[in-house]
This record gives sequence, C-alpha cells and structure tokens, in this order.
Amino acid sequence: MIDLYTWQTPNGEKPVLMLEECGLDYRLRMIDISAGEQKTPDFLAINPNGKIPALVDDEGGQGHTVFESGAILVYLAEKTGKFLPAAGPARHETLQWTFFQVGGTGPMLGQWHHFDAAAPERIPYAVERYRKESLRLLGVLDDRLKDREWLAGDYSIADIINFGWVRSGLSGLKDAGARDLSALMAWTERVGSRPAVKRAIEKLDVAKRDKSG
Amino acid sequence: MIDLYTWQTPNGEKPVLMLEECGLDYRLRMIDISAGEQKTPDFLAINPNGKIPALVDDEGGQGHTVFESGAILVYLAEKTGKFLPAAGPARHETLQWTFFQVGGTGPMLGQWHHFDAAAPERIPYAVERYRKESLRLLGVLDDRLKDREWLAGDYSIADIINFGWVRSGLSGLKDAGARDLSALMAWTERVGSRPAVKRAIEKLDVAKRDKSG
Ligand SMILES: N[C@@H](CCC(=O)N[C@@H](CS)C(=O)NCC(=O)O)C(=O)O
Ligand SMILES: N[C@@H](CCC(=O)N[C@@H](CS)C(=O)NCC(=O)O)C(=O)O
Repeated sequence: MIDLYTWQTPNGEKPVLMLEECGLDYRLRMIDISAGEQKTPDFLAINPNGKIPALVDDEGGQGHTVFESGAILVYLAEKTGKFLPAAGPARHETLQWTFFQVGGTGPMLGQWHHFDAAAPERIPYAVERYRKESLRLLGVLDDRLKDREWLAGDYSIADIINFGWVRSGLSGLKDAGARDLSALMAWTERVGSRPAVKRAIEKLDVAKRDKSG
Repeated sequence: MIDLYTWQTPNGEKPVLMLEECGLDYRLRMIDISAGEQKTPDFLAINPNGKIPALVDDEGGQGHTVFESGAILVYLAEKTGKFLPAAGPARHETLQWTFFQVGGTGPMLGQWHHFDAAAPERIPYAVERYRKESLRLLGVLDDRLKDREWLAGDYSIADIINFGWVRSGLSGLKDAGARDLSALMAWTERVGSRPAVKRAIEKLDVAKRDKSG
C-alpha cells in the first residue's frame, strides 16, 4: 500500500493527480502545514526537509520513502510505466519541463505569494520582482503550448507537475497587466477536465475538510 | 559531439562536473550571462527559458537539446549508465536529493545572493528570510551527511548537482551565526578533491577568461 503525506497546496496535489491518473491504491495522510505538522519528529523522519508531499510505498515489504514532488512523480512513473517515456527525446523533454517546474514556477510563485499575501510588511520591490518573474515563467509555458497539446509529447508527468502552480498563478496574477496567456489557459482547462484530475482535487478537498473538522 | 552552453556559476558548473566524471567529449560554449547572452534569439532557440546551462547532443545525428541542470544530469547518467542507479531505492534517493537541490538550495541561495549583494536597495527582511532558509537547507544536507560519505548510496548526480551551491553557500554564509556544518564541509572537500571536479572547475575558469578576453 502507498501512504501519501500531503496537504491541499499546489505541491501537495501533484502526487494525488499522479496516483489517480495511474489508478493506484493509496491512503491520504493529511499533514496540516498551517498547524506545523510538517515539523513534527514523526514527519521529519519521513522527510528531513520538513515539507509535504512525501510518499511511503511498502510494496514487497521494502518501504520506499520518497520526498520531493518531482522524485515522487518519477518514482510512480517508473513503477507503473506511465506518463514518462522510457527512452528517447520525449523522455528528456518530459524531465526538462518537470525540473523547470520544480526550479522555476514553484519557488518563484511561492515567493510572490509570500510577499503579496503573507509577509508581515509590504515590500514593493520584492512583490514586483516575483510577480514579474512568475509572469515571465508562465509566458515561457504559454509559448511552449502555442502549437502543442501537452508540454512534452503525450500527456505526462510534466503536465501533471506544472498544473497546480500554473492554476494558482493564473488566478492570483490575473489583471496584473500581464501578457496574453491564452494557450496556457486552454491547457489548464484540458488538464483540469481530466476525470483523474477532478477526482484528485475532490478527494483532497474532502480529506482537508475531514481533517480540519 | 556534445555542446554545453554554460557560464561560470553554481548552476553552470554542474554539467561540466558530470561530463568530466563521465569522461565524455564535449565543447564548452560560453554564454556570458553578465552580458545578457542568455536572452539572444540564438540561445532562446536552445532554451526558451533563457537560462544556462543547456546541452545539445548530436549523437547519431539526432540533436537532443536538454535544458535544466537536473534534466541534463539525468540525461547524461542514462546515456552513460553512470552516477544514477538503474533501479531500486538508491535510484529514488538519488533523484530525491537531486530535486531537493533544484527546488531548494538553488532558488533560495539565489534569492539570498540577490538581496544580499545585487538588489538596488537593502531590504533586511528579505536578506534575513533567505539567509535563514538557506542555512536551514544546508543544515538538512549536513544532517544527511553525518553518517554517510555521499548523499545517496555511491557518489552520484545528487552529489554532483549539490556541490556548487553548497560551496557557494558555505563561503557566502560563513560567520553568519550559523549552526555546525562540519559534515557538509567535509563532504565538500571530498567532492572538491576528485580529479574530475578539479578539471571541470579549471576548464570553466580558463574558458571564462578566454571569453572575457
Ligand atoms: N520542492 C518541493 C517543495 C515542497 C513545498 O514547498 N511544500 C510546501 C507546501 S506547498 C510546504 O510543505 N511548506 C511548509 C513548510 O515549508 O514549512 C517539492 O516539490 O516537493
Ligand atoms: N533551474 C535551473 C536554473 C538555471 C539558472 O538559474 N541559471 C542562471 C545562472 S546560475 C542564469 O542563467 N541566469 C541568467 C538569467 O536568469 O537571466 C537549472 O538548474 O538549470
């Protein structure tokens, strides 16, 4: 059985999408990051970096622990043979757009969100720095999607990993004096209308409500 | 032949280390990011994200283009069968510490560096935010290395990708009221004393001087 330790956030939903897409059995273990549960000794034993998501797979009694959403998606892709080509250019294109997400939209939209909504003081320079870089990154994705349906070949972990932060960016940054992002918006609708993606979002929603009581 | 488009930075040196470790033939194509060469149309055709490093491999006339340092290292590891186990827990541990670098020390030390040394105004809140998070991340690596020689099993792409930012963090953040990072320092010396790593650093240094004239 697979236990997924996660929360309802753009990083936390990635592996839920993937598990649903792969049709795997799993249990959602909700880690309330607003209550600091990601810093308890029990959770730090799973991910010493104290962040969700993390996955424990006891397949064959082996007990693989994997943290970092990118590594989790590659792990599940290689376990099932799905959503990541085994070889050839499509494999490396998929991985490159996967790493692009982890090193790009994740941290940059995260910083934008922090300075726009969470920081104790308003620092215009920082808000603008991350707003601009976030929009630039969304623009790179939009250009990429102008003449293709998915980010790299068929629907893949590159689409799955990019979805949440793009959705959050498109809603948070809207009316921000932005460039046209219509190809990216259309892609978001394509991903969002997949049954597995709908199920994932719904299940996380229910699990969060159950947990928060 | 492999062309590596890069510059002398923590992200730019990662694939040079890997190419030297693998004993592959390659040409260094220096992209002077201080002169904006990463935003020229020629380079954007290789990496639409306008960042170094990027690699073009014309093996078998196919012309694979790969950007994002993490994707480049996985590409080279799978091309050569080196520094990334083909299966089993060590594979996913290696990938998880690889993604940890791309999503963690890279962006966070990058932001620290920006606010500490490059931003047009001094913003204490931002400097402190990224200094603290950078130190925390280095502490996670230090804990990991307390009882092992390498980050995940044998020497791997996880060590190769983490080296540059750790080195830069340990020198830039020193005397910053930090915690003990001696296991991480010892690891940095172990990586840094490898002949391939020395050659990589030296070659980049020469290539940068040649280019800058
Ligand atoms: N690079 C990591 C990022 C994970 C991450 O930032 N998780 C956030 C939630 S979206 C978290 O756990 N934050 C709580 C904290 O840092 O204390 C990944 O892709 O898994
Ligand atoms: N996640 C990327 C980061 C690449 C990156 O940030 N490169 C920097 C140099 S260290 C760059 O090209 N900066 C110039 C710019 O952004 O214009 C990777 O790992 O390859």
